Amino acid sequence: MGNQNSKQKILLKGAELVHLKGYNNTGLKEILDYAGVPKGSFYFYFKSKEEFGLELLEFHFSFFRKLIVHYFNNTEIDPVNRIKLFFKDFKSLMLSQQCKLGCPIGNIIQEMSSINDNFREKLTSFYKELIGTLNNSLKEAQDNGEISDNLDTYKISEFIINSWQGSIMEMKLLRDIKPLELFEQIVLNNILQLN
Amino acid sequence: MGNQNSKQKILLKGAELVHLKGYNNTGLKEILDYAGVPKGSFYFYFKSKEEFGLELLEFHFSFFRKLIVHYFNNTEIDPVNRIKLFFKDFKSLMLSQQCKLGCPIGNIIQEMSSINDNFREKLTSFYKELIGTLNNSLKEAQDNGEISDNLDTYKISEFIINSWQGSIMEMKLLRDIKPLELFEQIVLNNILQLN
Repeated sequence: MGNQNSKQKILLKGAELVHLKGYNNTGLKEILDYAGVPKGSFYFYFKSKEEFGLELLEFHFSFFRKLIVHYFNNTEIDPVNRIKLFFKDFKSLMLSQQCKLGCPIGNIIQEMSSINDNFREKLTSFYKELIGTLNNSLKEAQDNGEISDNLDTYKISEFIINSWQGSIMEMKLLRDIKPLELFEQIVLNNILQLN
Repeated sequence: MGNQNSKQKILLKGAELVHLKGYNNTGLKEILDYAGVPKGSFYFYFKSKEEFGLELLEFHFSFFRKLIVHYFNNTEIDPVNRIKLFFKDFKSLMLSQQCKLGCPIGNIIQEMSSINDNFREKLTSFYKELIGTLNNSLKEAQDNGEISDNLDTYKISEFIINSWQGSIMEMKLLRDIKPLELFEQIVLNNILQLN
């Protein structure tokens, strides 16, 4: 007890349970059992369940930030293809979870925004970061002449992220990847107006 | 105790609490206290919390079905204006809740789809009903020449409902109506290709 390894285990196994069952619906005892960490040790690592939840968010953000670097900072491929590849590979990730779990961040936004402002602030700033990342690639695509000059890239980015989240929600409801295929199709054919 | 009035109170007040706090995060005692119904009477009306939850879904569906009849079966205005009016008035409803609560059905889809198949089945069939309703109006709009013949109206309807749900989620996150205004703008200007 008392090492960083146990704390990481609590976060990792906690993330898994919360992804499936929701934050409020996952008990501390359950997380500790699943992580194989002694009962009673939780408060050694986290002051409260809320502190655990907020660290869980950082855990997810850092996973997404790695994806962002991998896909969106890859200047070897053109910006529209970066975007396509990101959404395609995220779709594969969802498929590997049998389309059952959805986006861990979207789930927590839906669950916590109305009841906890500490969660809401952290989630808001990350959501804007995600929109900003997409916007940077779309601006580059506009400069390259890949997409129409008429598009307001920030608004389009915001709408794309929102419709992506809504499509992930339908995916989870139907337990079927089709809503994410439809999302890609409409974004590419109807929204981005590829030149 | 034992009258339909008490059962309705439990559903009505329960709906309010679940809308704010989530289904799993709302306790039975809390609902009964809020509804002013005697403790212990819950199991007189519902076999289990799950049965309450499933009746709560029907309660929301019937609210939405009334909206659907009011907006989508109104043949006095043309189909694109019916759609516009529905989304506009729903936006006002969200504003009246300070953009805090989101869509009661979207919230429960997000919370319950991964963990309860009885919820998931009911929610799936209602979600398809909603897409079907929008599709009927879009087909009519296509027949009238209001929107382009090139659109696959069912796919567009499905995507619109998904992006609407995602936009409601961002609204809730930001506690700001702008995501729903953006939704209307992109659907009308970029997706529906109004003639």
